Amino acid sequence: MMYRTERDSVGELEVPADSYYGVHSLRAKINFPITSQRLDKDFIISLAQVKKATALANHKLGLLPDLKVKAIIQASDEIISGKLHDQFIVDPIQGGAGTSSNMNVNEVITNRAIELLGGKKGDFSIVHPNDDVNKGQSTNDVYPTAGKLTMLKKIPDLMYQLERLRDVFEEKSLEFQDVLKLGRTQLSDAVPITLGQEFHAYYTVTKRNIKRLEHVKEEMETINLGGTAIGTGITAHPELAQTVIPYLNTITNQNLQTSDDLVDGTQNIEQYVILSDVLKSIAISLSKIANDIRLLSSGPNSGIGEITIPARQNGSSIMPGKINPVIPEVVTQCSFVVMGNNAIIGSAAEAGQLELNAFEPVVFYKLLESFQVLTNGISTFVDHCVSGIEANKERCSDNLERSTYLATVLSETIGYTRAADIAKESLTTGQTIREIAEAQGIKIETHEKVASLVK
Amino acid sequence: MMYRTERDSVGELEVPADSYYGVHSLRAKINFPITSQRLDKDFIISLAQVKKATALANHKLGLLPDLKVKAIIQASDEIISGKLHDQFIVDPIQGGAGTSSNMNVNEVITNRAIELLGGKKGDFSIVHPNDDVNKGQSTNDVYPTAGKLTMLKKIPDLMYQLERLRDVFEEKSLEFQDVLKLGRTQLSDAVPITLGQEFHAYYTVTKRNIKRLEHVKEEMETINLGGTAIGTGITAHPELAQTVIPYLNTITNQNLQTSDDLVDGTQNIEQYVILSDVLKSIAISLSKIANDIRLLSSGPNSGIGEITIPARQNGSSIMPGKINPVIPEVVTQCSFVVMGNNAIIGSAAEAGQLELNAFEPVVFYKLLESFQVLTNGISTFVDHCVSGIEANKERCSDNLERSTYLATVLSETIGYTRAADIAKESLTTGQTIREIAEAQGIKIETHEKVASLVK
Amino acid sequence: MMYRTERDSVGELEVPADSYYGVHSLRAKINFPITSQRLDKDFIISLAQVKKATALANHKLGLLPDLKVKAIIQASDEIISGKLHDQFIVDPIQGGAGTSSNMNVNEVITNRAIELLGGKKGDFSIVHPNDDVNKGQSTNDVYPTAGKLTMLKKIPDLMYQLERLRDVFEEKSLEFQDVLKLGRTQLSDAVPITLGQEFHAYYTVTKRNIKRLEHVKEEMETINLGGTAIGTGITAHPELAQTVIPYLNTITNQNLQTSDDLVDGTQNIEQYVILSDVLKSIAISLSKIANDIRLLSSGPNSGIGEITIPARQNGSSIMPGKINPVIPEVVTQCSFVVMGNNAIIGSAAEAGQLELNAFEPVVFYKLLESFQVLTNGISTFVDHCVSGIEANKERCSDNLERSTYLATVLSETIGYTRAADIAKESLTTGQTIREIAEAQGIKIETHEKVASLVK
Amino acid sequence: MMYRTERDSVGELEVPADSYYGVHSLRAKINFPITSQRLDKDFIISLAQVKKATALANHKLGLLPDLKVKAIIQASDEIISGKLHDQFIVDPIQGGAGTSSNMNVNEVITNRAIELLGGKKGDFSIVHPNDDVNKGQSTNDVYPTAGKLTMLKKIPDLMYQLERLRDVFEEKSLEFQDVLKLGRTQLSDAVPITLGQEFHAYYTVTKRNIKRLEHVKEEMETINLGGTAIGTGITAHPELAQTVIPYLNTITNQNLQTSDDLVDGTQNIEQYVILSDVLKSIAISLSKIANDIRLLSSGPNSGIGEITIPARQNGSSIMPGKINPVIPEVVTQCSFVVMGNNAIIGSAAEAGQLELNAFEPVVFYKLLESFQVLTNGISTFVDHCVSGIEANKERCSDNLERSTYLATVLSETIGYTRAADIAKESLTTGQTIREIAEAQGIKIETHEKVASLVK
Repeated sequence: MMYRTERDSVGELEVPADSYYGVHSLRAKINFPITSQRLDKDFIISLAQVKKATALANHKLGLLPDLKVKAIIQASDEIISGKLHDQFIVDPIQGGAGTSSNMNVNEVITNRAIELLGGKKGDFSIVHPNDDVNKGQSTNDVYPTAGKLTMLKKIPDLMYQLERLRDVFEEKSLEFQDVLKLGRTQLSDAVPITLGQEFHAYYTVTKRNIKRLEHVKEEMETINLGGTAIGTGITAHPELAQTVIPYLNTITNQNLQTSDDLVDGTQNIEQYVILSDVLKSIAISLSKIANDIRLLSSGPNSGIGEITIPARQNGSSIMPGKINPVIPEVVTQCSFVVMGNNAIIGSAAEAGQLELNAFEPVVFYKLLESFQVLTNGISTFVDHCVSGIEANKERCSDNLERSTYLATVLSETIGYTRAADIAKESLTTGQTIREIAEAQGIKIETHEKVASLVK
Repeated sequence: MMYRTERDSVGELEVPADSYYGVHSLRAKINFPITSQRLDKDFIISLAQVKKATALANHKLGLLPDLKVKAIIQASDEIISGKLHDQFIVDPIQGGAGTSSNMNVNEVITNRAIELLGGKKGDFSIVHPNDDVNKGQSTNDVYPTAGKLTMLKKIPDLMYQLERLRDVFEEKSLEFQDVLKLGRTQLSDAVPITLGQEFHAYYTVTKRNIKRLEHVKEEMETINLGGTAIGTGITAHPELAQTVIPYLNTITNQNLQTSDDLVDGTQNIEQYVILSDVLKSIAISLSKIANDIRLLSSGPNSGIGEITIPARQNGSSIMPGKINPVIPEVVTQCSFVVMGNNAIIGSAAEAGQLELNAFEPVVFYKLLESFQVLTNGISTFVDHCVSGIEANKERCSDNLERSTYLATVLSETIGYTRAADIAKESLTTGQTIREIAEAQGIKIETHEKVASLVK
Repeated sequence: MMYRTERDSVGELEVPADSYYGVHSLRAKINFPITSQRLDKDFIISLAQVKKATALANHKLGLLPDLKVKAIIQASDEIISGKLHDQFIVDPIQGGAGTSSNMNVNEVITNRAIELLGGKKGDFSIVHPNDDVNKGQSTNDVYPTAGKLTMLKKIPDLMYQLERLRDVFEEKSLEFQDVLKLGRTQLSDAVPITLGQEFHAYYTVTKRNIKRLEHVKEEMETINLGGTAIGTGITAHPELAQTVIPYLNTITNQNLQTSDDLVDGTQNIEQYVILSDVLKSIAISLSKIANDIRLLSSGPNSGIGEITIPARQNGSSIMPGKINPVIPEVVTQCSFVVMGNNAIIGSAAEAGQLELNAFEPVVFYKLLESFQVLTNGISTFVDHCVSGIEANKERCSDNLERSTYLATVLSETIGYTRAADIAKESLTTGQTIREIAEAQGIKIETHEKVASLVK
Repeated sequence: MMYRTERDSVGELEVPADSYYGVHSLRAKINFPITSQRLDKDFIISLAQVKKATALANHKLGLLPDLKVKAIIQASDEIISGKLHDQFIVDPIQGGAGTSSNMNVNEVITNRAIELLGGKKGDFSIVHPNDDVNKGQSTNDVYPTAGKLTMLKKIPDLMYQLERLRDVFEEKSLEFQDVLKLGRTQLSDAVPITLGQEFHAYYTVTKRNIKRLEHVKEEMETINLGGTAIGTGITAHPELAQTVIPYLNTITNQNLQTSDDLVDGTQNIEQYVILSDVLKSIAISLSKIANDIRLLSSGPNSGIGEITIPARQNGSSIMPGKINPVIPEVVTQCSFVVMGNNAIIGSAAEAGQLELNAFEPVVFYKLLESFQVLTNGISTFVDHCVSGIEANKERCSDNLERSTYLATVLSETIGYTRAADIAKESLTTGQTIREIAEAQGIKIETHEKVASLVK
């Protein structure tokens, strides 16, 4: 392979001659061989969008000449359109608070811009990664701004899946509105409910989480671009922050605004925890529902068996005919990931020191993993499980009749104590509540009548 | 001691004759000897408020005669005013999803009401704990309703402390607005900032958390009272839910409303996680600030030493004259508690099954602990640390002069690469940046001038 | 009230005249109004034991005169025997890495010793809290040493409950060894097992956790007493560390040894995390078993219902006759507490800096809470649940017959694919596997025969 | 592309004609589009090793004919040698407790074996994935056995890095044994220590963690192979478990043994939590050390600055000459990942139900991530940071002289109270302790003398 020599404050380093990345990216690749993963595609695009917007703003402020800005914009646009992503070689988990990813994008844009201007990669006299592409910027405002942009790009996908989940729960709640069945508290037989009501509760909690996700977006919309290293704007044009915002909003189609307090905006990253908390809330609700579906479909013969979930694959390598709740199981595992990542994100946020939080890279990495597994988990949950759930009406009816719930109905007319005695007698003798009550001359309603009392 | 005999579905039990609690409370005390703690005072009051409100509603709906309701209300009012709290004997961590605490309040109100009506404790022919005091209710709507009321009572105290913290940070940011000092990223010397700007960032993040705490209140304002056992309202008058709300709002001075979906309202408890998440956000921000204060006051001679925190006690049993940052240290420990409790609360919320989450007691217990340590931690932080912080101006100035930040300023005029060379030379030779630059004929600004460029 | 005046480096303070604690304890009480709890009784005793042992060692080394040491020992013995515990007024969550608790015991012993020597409390010319009682010690070796001693005192109680749990599982496994029933994987009907085998698995995992608890003791047996402030032994007699160990072992009946590296011994506290991890392992296993018991006893009519757990209290305030699995529910909540505390303890251990971890107080506090809830949770689990579990043989047999497990047995003779077809036919037609197989001329074993193939 | 048609209990599916995987793997790929990752290479190999060993055992027990077993072994060996890994298409996070990964290896081996026997892929009359390759096995014993084998393969790499870390700390402790410096507790100036002692403490804690890692291996060495679906050994030859062990140990060069209680061995997975706990202990110790190194190297001019870490890359995109502690920062992020994964693994282990834990896939996935980031993090820490650390002796000496520690030394001769007064005077007047003491005629030792008192 051919190499070119680049140097930084550490010394010289051979960089592949045709690479767009440069010495900083390569050193970082060597320094951080942690996950074997690459930076998220949307994150790369967001970085390029920030670079494009600041180039435009610097140009407007008279700080970048036409030729340079044109080349920088074209290079940025190529990255935005999905090109050159293989040049982003730095591990997402990195020291330096994101400096290496910022320098990676600086280097790629620079070398591509140099090329566009007819120069040779590495000839920074034409375009310079720090003095031009990073002009008036610092990792400490670029990286979190791109991070927030990335999260804003992830929210709609998750939202879309949540809305599909909400809708399928609503459909099921209508489909099952007349399926009278036994409700259970603490896994113990309780009182009647309809299967529709149960799915309506799933609908409601999903709707509530959607609202939270909508609301939390605003935590991502305040950025610190223009604050540079520590929020004081050092090296940036005093009007950069306000100049860049409209460019960035146009480029990204977002509603970003500059933080009122850029020092705070640089050092505090608890907004990501709040976002992660909403993902966790979704995960918790989802896992609860997935567990319910496993319980309701359990058996099928010797469990509750009140619903049937779609068979998706052989359930067992050894037990023929076994169909397992594989989709709810994977959903719960996704939830555990999101819940544990929440702890990682919280710890990293807490560990910030003075003017900066050096642990943003792991925050972003884990937040993106949470988005991924949650979005994918819900998608497969909707398509491969919830949408195909069927009610086992006969089993619902049998389970209801077998239970002792009628004692609760009785208690309204004959009091808690007498009703409890009848319930106890039923459990001992095997007679139904109805039989014992009628033998004592107590009238008792039909299930349907009881259910109609219940909204 | 004298005893009276009570019975439940398990059998008979001797209960101290003068106790207001009864067989259920006593069995629960025996069953759950977990924490040795008692139920939170505000929680006891909230339970009594729920009982009072439902008694009034049942009375209005014609289901409770005047005499009984009057006695029940008087008994409830006594508890609300702080009396009879020693009769609440059940451990806050309990099985049964709160049944025992609900029965504890039912029994205490019942026996006090019987007494008020001239009867003898335990004579449930006069007032009955289930049929009268628990009329149209279930643990599963009473307990979470009282739980939310309790949290709503805790929020103002925490808010008050947060507002004090915000205000003292604002005062300090004004007091320190001219104290020019070195900013640090990744614990490394960076560029100038004022101590005032640093404290303003603390002010800003605190203000943001206050906003979150205000907003999260609404998660606690939707209740499921009237849903009874599983949200279907079984055994309750169909109009109970809507009838009880105005009574409860009047009694508690809150803005509660009934959930649109009482089935969801009974089984899903992720709202408490969301509330706990806000406490966690406060904790994270707080701990970050506490750590900053420990860093800034470190030394004092051989650390950063840019601020002095009030001496609160001998710092050491062995090292005379040592003053330790004991208050920031306790604040960080409070934060760790809140962060870990968040995990407990999340796991408990995830573990709900079907119509109910049986693990609400530990959710409430740990949420209340989080409120307590956070509220108390902030209070001592304000009074015994932040309000007495003083700037060490001379040290601030020395640290700034000693640092290499001027290279950053230079980079704007001479470029990143040349500036880096000068910085490197300074570190090697011990000459200051200013000296080297001036030797090369490069003009360099004063700190004050640089700082004035910075907002 | 009467007061005496004491002074420290902060200034003068009025201390109640008859209090044994002094200025430091009182300041700490004011500084740390966090939990409203008191220090654990065993912790107080452990502190006094450390003081007694070091007094004896200092005396042997010729550093404390007879009279003083005699008084200090008598004062320590009083605390060890349970006296004066009301004088320990400092909150267990405190800043200062435990200095306040160390000074609290120094002050109480000092003032009691002064009194025994005929002096007046506060007259430190007779005995001095720092120069005599804390002689050759620092909080930084005294507090962790007492902390480890305290944990060593908690282990036997937990061990005792675990052994009782192990034994009751073994008894039940024998009692249920002939109860043939359906095994379930992923809540789906699988293949036969005996109820005895299930309880034997609970026995085995409990035994394994007991072994872990035994093994982890050694993490608590290496102490840093003699290292003083930072492990270098400054202010201590060079032979103190080795001199004090036999005294301390005699007094406490333990096998403590001095760390090879006292600097490490002062700054690293991951041993407590390891101990907490073992508690967490117990908690995880326990909660899994508690959940199993809730599943197996679920219904009872319209769930699995294969076992009956003892009725401990009315299950519901509204549903007469309902018996809930309240004990397993409280056990799971205890487990959640232990699991969340593990996160707190881990975060606090990670946060140590340089020569000391300032967050030991919260580590001890939460570790002690974990011991408490786990020990108490297991105790009630054994007495009020596991020991009274009964098998519902008929239900076990019915569930087995209804299931499709025989397809698995068939697969050995007719292959997986054909067996799967029969299983599918059974689910569709409602015919049992046995009926379809026999109609196809395939012989099939009895349950008992199948079970006897299974160990 | 060409396809072949395969069927399972769900129906028919087109599978790429040249694929070795089959219908089950493909369905699973569709069902679980969660992480976009592939199964860990060592895990694939471990699965093939289990298949090879059981084929040999079944052959010895007379259950598999020569021809089939030969082909199965050759196919397995190819996978073990690194071939066909691209045929493992199932996401590591999957429902079904690992059934899909087990079926994936069954299908790949089967089709490769068929090919070797001259047949056409998919012609299961030659070799059958369930009846032959999975003979006498179940996912529920194969998957955890392969999981444990995988962990046993990961331990040596981590151990190697830990040993390198331990050794470099030892070297540094010798190199720095004469560098006298200030010790700090609670970030406050305390008393003298040598830099060598500090690094020796890092050596000691690393050594302790190595011991724990060695000890925890045994948790991975007890396997449940032979237990099949639920530990009762159904469908397996009664002697399979004991027959397979020597084959598996020979193939893998491990010391595996069969669990005494295969029912426990199938349902309880807390061993992985214990392993994860040891990784967490390493992570906690590591992060503490990384933080220390950031503190000690902080500044360099206006922080503590007592050590210099190697410059690894430009520290800043904006601040020329800035060198940041990027390696310690990435190490701490690795630690946060391991700590959060521990929570995921714990929650998944707790969630097992009855005869199986369905959440093993996420346990393995996250445990493997923990191994990866920890092993890689330590490797870069050793090579790119610790091994190049240099002492700044002059700064160490200056910091010591500036501090107030001599008050502690004085307290031994003049008592705590007088020494505290002198310390206070020094802080107020700016005079050194030495100056004030000598003015009062009190002799004070040199630093070296004090240090020599200290071991």
